[in-house]
Amino acid sequence: MKKKETIVGTIDREVLAFTAGRDVILDRVLVEADCIGTAAHVRTLAGMALPAPILAGDEARAVIRELVGIVKLARRGKFRITERDQDVHLAVERRLTERLGDLGKKVHTGRSRNDQVAVDLRLYAKEAVLGIFEACAALTEELTRFGRRHARVPMVGRTHLQPAMPTSVGVWATAHAESLLDDLVILRAAYDINDRCPLGSAAGYGVPLPLDRRLTADLLGFRDPIHNVTYASNARGKCEAAVLNALAQLMLTLSRLAEDLILYSMPEFGYFRLPAELCTGSSIMPQKKNPDVLELVRAKAARVLADASAVSGIIKALAGGYNRDLQETKEPFLAGLETTRASLAIMAQLVASLGLDRDALRRGFTPPVFATDRALELVAAGMPFRDAYNHVREHLEELDAADPAEAVKAKTHLGASAGLDFGYFRGRTGAVKRFVKAERSRYYARVSKLLGVRYPAVEAAE
Amino acid sequence: MKKKETIVGTIDREVLAFTAGRDVILDRVLVEADCIGTAAHVRTLAGMALPAPILAGDEARAVIRELVGIVKLARRGKFRITERDQDVHLAVERRLTERLGDLGKKVHTGRSRNDQVAVDLRLYAKEAVLGIFEACAALTEELTRFGRRHARVPMVGRTHLQPAMPTSVGVWATAHAESLLDDLVILRAAYDINDRCPLGSAAGYGVPLPLDRRLTADLLGFRDPIHNVTYASNARGKCEAAVLNALAQLMLTLSRLAEDLILYSMPEFGYFRLPAELCTGSSIMPQKKNPDVLELVRAKAARVLADASAVSGIIKALAGGYNRDLQETKEPFLAGLETTRASLAIMAQLVASLGLDRDALRRGFTPPVFATDRALELVAAGMPFRDAYNHVREHLEELDAADPAEAVKAKTHLGASAGLDFGYFRGRTGAVKRFVKAERSRYYARVSKLLGVRYPAVEAAE
Amino acid sequence: MKKKETIVGTIDREVLAFTAGRDVILDRVLVEADCIGTAAHVRTLAGMALPAPILAGDEARAVIRELVGIVKLARRGKFRITERDQDVHLAVERRLTERLGDLGKKVHTGRSRNDQVAVDLRLYAKEAVLGIFEACAALTEELTRFGRRHARVPMVGRTHLQPAMPTSVGVWATAHAESLLDDLVILRAAYDINDRCPLGSAAGYGVPLPLDRRLTADLLGFRDPIHNVTYASNARGKCEAAVLNALAQLMLTLSRLAEDLILYSMPEFGYFRLPAELCTGSSIMPQKKNPDVLELVRAKAARVLADASAVSGIIKALAGGYNRDLQETKEPFLAGLETTRASLAIMAQLVASLGLDRDALRRGFTPPVFATDRALELVAAGMPFRDAYNHVREHLEELDAADPAEAVKAKTHLGASAGLDFGYFRGRTGAVKRFVKAERSRYYARVSKLLGVRYPAVEAAE
Amino acid sequence: MKKKETIVGTIDREVLAFTAGRDVILDRVLVEADCIGTAAHVRTLAGMALPAPILAGDEARAVIRELVGIVKLARRGKFRITERDQDVHLAVERRLTERLGDLGKKVHTGRSRNDQVAVDLRLYAKEAVLGIFEACAALTEELTRFGRRHARVPMVGRTHLQPAMPTSVGVWATAHAESLLDDLVILRAAYDINDRCPLGSAAGYGVPLPLDRRLTADLLGFRDPIHNVTYASNARGKCEAAVLNALAQLMLTLSRLAEDLILYSMPEFGYFRLPAELCTGSSIMPQKKNPDVLELVRAKAARVLADASAVSGIIKALAGGYNRDLQETKEPFLAGLETTRASLAIMAQLVASLGLDRDALRRGFTPPVFATDRALELVAAGMPFRDAYNHVREHLEELDAADPAEAVKAKTHLGASAGLDFGYFRGRTGAVKRFVKAERSRYYARVSKLLGVRYPAVEAAE
Repeated sequence: MKKKETIVGTIDREVLAFTAGRDVILDRVLVEADCIGTAAHVRTLAGMALPAPILAGDEARAVIRELVGIVKLARRGKFRITERDQDVHLAVERRLTERLGDLGKKVHTGRSRNDQVAVDLRLYAKEAVLGIFEACAALTEELTRFGRRHARVPMVGRTHLQPAMPTSVGVWATAHAESLLDDLVILRAAYDINDRCPLGSAAGYGVPLPLDRRLTADLLGFRDPIHNVTYASNARGKCEAAVLNALAQLMLTLSRLAEDLILYSMPEFGYFRLPAELCTGSSIMPQKKNPDVLELVRAKAARVLADASAVSGIIKALAGGYNRDLQETKEPFLAGLETTRASLAIMAQLVASLGLDRDALRRGFTPPVFATDRALELVAAGMPFRDAYNHVREHLEELDAADPAEAVKAKTHLGASAGLDFGYFRGRTGAVKRFVKAERSRYYARVSKLLGVRYPAVEAAE
Repeated sequence: MKKKETIVGTIDREVLAFTAGRDVILDRVLVEADCIGTAAHVRTLAGMALPAPILAGDEARAVIRELVGIVKLARRGKFRITERDQDVHLAVERRLTERLGDLGKKVHTGRSRNDQVAVDLRLYAKEAVLGIFEACAALTEELTRFGRRHARVPMVGRTHLQPAMPTSVGVWATAHAESLLDDLVILRAAYDINDRCPLGSAAGYGVPLPLDRRLTADLLGFRDPIHNVTYASNARGKCEAAVLNALAQLMLTLSRLAEDLILYSMPEFGYFRLPAELCTGSSIMPQKKNPDVLELVRAKAARVLADASAVSGIIKALAGGYNRDLQETKEPFLAGLETTRASLAIMAQLVASLGLDRDALRRGFTPPVFATDRALELVAAGMPFRDAYNHVREHLEELDAADPAEAVKAKTHLGASAGLDFGYFRGRTGAVKRFVKAERSRYYARVSKLLGVRYPAVEAAE
Repeated sequence: MKKKETIVGTIDREVLAFTAGRDVILDRVLVEADCIGTAAHVRTLAGMALPAPILAGDEARAVIRELVGIVKLARRGKFRITERDQDVHLAVERRLTERLGDLGKKVHTGRSRNDQVAVDLRLYAKEAVLGIFEACAALTEELTRFGRRHARVPMVGRTHLQPAMPTSVGVWATAHAESLLDDLVILRAAYDINDRCPLGSAAGYGVPLPLDRRLTADLLGFRDPIHNVTYASNARGKCEAAVLNALAQLMLTLSRLAEDLILYSMPEFGYFRLPAELCTGSSIMPQKKNPDVLELVRAKAARVLADASAVSGIIKALAGGYNRDLQETKEPFLAGLETTRASLAIMAQLVASLGLDRDALRRGFTPPVFATDRALELVAAGMPFRDAYNHVREHLEELDAADPAEAVKAKTHLGASAGLDFGYFRGRTGAVKRFVKAERSRYYARVSKLLGVRYPAVEAAE
Repeated sequence: MKKKETIVGTIDREVLAFTAGRDVILDRVLVEADCIGTAAHVRTLAGMALPAPILAGDEARAVIRELVGIVKLARRGKFRITERDQDVHLAVERRLTERLGDLGKKVHTGRSRNDQVAVDLRLYAKEAVLGIFEACAALTEELTRFGRRHARVPMVGRTHLQPAMPTSVGVWATAHAESLLDDLVILRAAYDINDRCPLGSAAGYGVPLPLDRRLTADLLGFRDPIHNVTYASNARGKCEAAVLNALAQLMLTLSRLAEDLILYSMPEFGYFRLPAELCTGSSIMPQKKNPDVLELVRAKAARVLADASAVSGIIKALAGGYNRDLQETKEPFLAGLETTRASLAIMAQLVASLGLDRDALRRGFTPPVFATDRALELVAAGMPFRDAYNHVREHLEELDAADPAEAVKAKTHLGASAGLDFGYFRGRTGAVKRFVKAERSRYYARVSKLLGVRYPAVEAAE
């Protein structure tokens, strides 16, 4: 560490600020992951078959006890990463050395900050992504509930934003739910890619020590180690891009839900009533009730797209092996995860209290909206489509008396206004929730065993 | 159709050019998909339980025969989409009407161009994405083969592009292979999202006809129908974005492989020899042998990223229901698919003939490259890491005699230079190839049954 | 050339297709620029002070006569770029050699395809950008005219899309006009960057010949030569990015104008009536009148943003000197120019026939819209703002009788509903038109002199 | 304000956190601009010709004195923006009201937070952009100095990264300088767009008060007011995009300079020696000297591109009038400004201490590098180009003895190795510096007069 200090000492302020960047702040969220990753590394070191073991079993246990101590400190806001530490990794190592002397200095054996930060980010991302699955399931649940509650409330379906055909609030709400559920298919793939352990790859070329990389992966609850050590290094940024692209898809869905709600809560439509506690007023206009939350969600979709684009731009054509460019992927990655989680959570809250005005919805129905349905009824009764189409077009005035509720009932096929299967949405949502639960308990079990305390509580194991 | 002609007649040239855009050209690749999708729709219409069937069974068969005829015409380059047709859908409908009269006019019953173009693109994308899986497997195979052939040839591993530690050509090559295989995890999720049938959703609100949407999906070999009819419409663009994001990840991996090859085939390194037939000369400099293919692949990564970004930008905050904006997703989607396929194919060809200069690779080894290995050897023999580290740093001159081949042998753990499991790469590649084969034969079997001819040959079924 | 043929002969089809890419098609629009650039190069060669002139004066004239012939051929659609030519440069050189023998072979002396394509693109872009200035001026003119015609027609001003305060159609229309005029400030800077001549830089390192690069620049009507020869090469892509970013800003403005028009022509508002010839119907819904053109403009904004992003992505971190990556900037560059021009043109056409419904606009006024104005009237009469604000809020019901026309008249300060200076908009638009005219006539005068024919007519000079 | 507190009180934590976002932190840098903008608004209010003036002259002076006090507090780090304030605007207003009672409550008359934040950002950006001009001029100065110092040191010019033709370090260095100077042409346009005053537009629709918007603009040193009040509102985000696009161009140039330096300081080339204080070591590899700063600059180019892309994505197709989406443009805007400034500053520092190894540069010259020069020498002596070309190609071995220094001398035309005009670069750099100085002193003079203290010192005016 001493040399590090000297080096840091010779770097002038601007250079240090430029290179350490915002890591001192960003890394705060990585303390726990760094401790867990270090615990697994220490156990792996202690388990190596060498003539003179690098770390004895009780030494490993002592280190892990200190790591648990750091986790506790951090949760109380008492663990600091100083400018001199530069990052979480050196802050943890400094603490271990302060507390354990030479033993602390052995911890970094066979490890580089390259694989250390990679594993930290993957552990952090695992929990963050599971949280996003959960928040997303909460939103699909609310949308399904809202859709079911107003399943057959007629609503004008639009194309090109112009009134087109009768539909229902149920179809509108579950369309967004199904979109989110599809987005989770991509997020699941990104989760799987993230769920592999880079530890043991060191600086990207491995080490001449018999590290048992499968053991490390297993201790941390990863599905597998990344195989190739250089890929373990090259995967940094790439894994982040995979996750961010999936998050961007979720945000795009939210932006479209937000757009629908902004439009249809304008007084000229009045279909939906936004919950007052989620709107804001104006300092200059007393009458205003603004859909700020929805507008922010809409804008944040562009932010997360940009987060993804930053990471992809950084790794494009980057030569193999670790390059410092990768440090710049950390901020957009953490930002994208948090933005998406918060957006999903607030949208669930909003949909849960969303109001609806049946009369306003019904006022949207003008006769031409029934034109296509009428033509197809004639077709169903035997008239050739083109004749039916022309007939209706020439008698648009006869459509006046049509009843939206009847139109809603008439579309009985799969996924239409009278053909929705709410069980389908509940089923897919339920599967997501079970997945989150299973993954979490598997992960917590491993970490609990590794740290010797109940995790995530960090209390003495029984 | 007549009315369509009149409408087109009243639109002035600039407007027509602006709205029809490049569809007349782009849609050429969709003819086959449009015919197949139409065949399934016709079969579904014929199968509806209605007092007066819209289409009799033999009528459906007659239509399908004509559709097969169109496929054959198209393959001979004889099926034209005219400016007046505007797009493939109207071109096919025009042909059916010319040949079958009133029967042709019934085909569009219960269908809108919205769900028609959506199903066309999904059928097209299914085959295109399978082709990309295949091309990618070919490349991972070549990389694995190259890596295995030169498994233990020493190569300088770099971080920050500076010489860092000993590694091997085997590690270098399979790092890129593993990256591609991970990219396919995302592509598989995109494939699954694409593998659902939007037909029957019509303009996004269904129709008052008892269409059996599960049957349609089944006839076309889709895993499922999209459930919600409005989501079937909203999913346009979104499905494209999912695929393009996955392709962009593949292209990013290729851009990094290309970068490595461009660098290490410079005369100052000379590690790799690019196959002459994949290089180009200069009209002004006779000595030049330029890695144009690699440079183009590198640049095309930015192109595919931009294709993905165009589609995401289009659908961001787009109100629900069909909007004409979606037409603009077609060109980047088709472009991204073709660019990625072609890039993978040419990279496989390049790696297959890639040469290597062992002497040049060995010249890259300077003593400091062995520093870390040496320190860790001392650690393995019992010396504390920090002491070993300092010892080596103070005796860098003693490292001179180190043998790269020994260094390569010394890293025995998983995924390092002496710990590569080539079977792992072959296994994952094999799984990809089996997936492609199974999906294709399932799809072709369905289409063959639907069209009544052997597909893709389009020959009389036995 | 022979060797070129042989080289091409040995490249297999996929490689040729991959490297030549779409140049054979894209380059069609560059024929004229290539001929003009070549003419200037030939004149410069002929003017060099050398013991043995490379090209005699009459030889240069002979070459230029052939170049004029190629321009004429191209305008009749008779000049072909074959697959074997690969690009416009070799196609022109081939033609010259076919017609002039050895003289044709001298033309490329002291030039590389690098500076040749760079100058072609700059000449092409100069005219294209001037066309965009012109199309933009036409649109700001129409917006100003529309704004003036309906200057004091009351319209509800919105924030957060919610009704906020009274405004006028005049303010609405000229807001978009001023936005476009500001966009042209950026486009002008991009035009200036483009307006410098790269010729004479050859492959990016100059040549050991006394080329008079200022003369070349002057012959072509460029403001200046690019000074540094390597920058002349590095500027490729960069100049394109500058132009595309400016175009993207224009498209963003158009996307917002389009959004306003799509919204406020929905039947629920009915403020604007889109010209029928710019709307399209539906094949399934007879009642539909869809704002396709506006939707496409909205989407094309995302396309041009992606074009810009592709180019920036390509040149990011690209090592200096020509790299083949740059070829991939050509397609997005040409696409962005054409998309923007066409979008501006069709929007001008649309605004020129845009209808307006005064009653519908007036119906949008609900009492709360007047709240702020009323409060400020009280303030103007002496009441403290906060008291006035509270007073109005507690008496919202008294606002009923407010007259929108009066509210429009009451805002007299600069740029508000009664403070618009239409002369301001006409003045800025006029300046743009004069700029286009002056630049064009300067350019055409130079080219006419260079080619010895009246340009752009390409008729014999008097 | 009270109501605001209540509103805030009823919003739950997640909603408040979501809507106020990071403004509480981000707005710290806007305190000064907010005070200056408010001072101008107050002066304008006091100057209005109304029967009962809203603010008397001495009241305006009292407010301005308090604003100066806030500026001083902020500079000592003592002015806090609390969560309850939400943003800088309410924090300043709260302070004024605390100190001045009712007078503080009048300040917001005729103003909305919409035009307030817009003017704050433009004032902040004006200074930030001038700082970037200055930092950029410092870098072009260093590059020109470096280029001049090593003007004729031979260096291999490359195309496709392959050795191509002789060039010089002078050409290499000034190529990057000229690129930066061109980037400033775009930045200047963005500066001009930013240099217009939105104040007085209130919520985007003006107010029924006779505000003298030209006076306000003049007090703040803006070139002009924005004319149309709605455009003043719509311009938010757009102005940011213009600036960020210009910054992205600068960053792209830096990324390419960084790439060149990373490559050519690899030991295999060794052309350049990076200053030790700008490199970092490795905790695991004692021999490492890594170009971290350059790698970070390279990556930060992608970050700033993403900042620009976020803003463009947010405003794409945004309906007119203020939308809360715009709040999300603040963070990428501030980030892009700071990233670019810091990157330019550190690159200037790096180039100022950049070392060079003439021998290593000379080792790069292999005979084929002289091929083209030799052919053109023959051409200059009278041989037809094609013959010369073939002759050289067949006698490549004769090129051995060529002297790089002679090759450098032989290229005498404008911008080549012996034709560089360093005065050109000094001249353009000097113009930039004069521009910065003039703009700053004009701005500071206005602010000094407005605040009644010497600015930026904020000391009592003499």
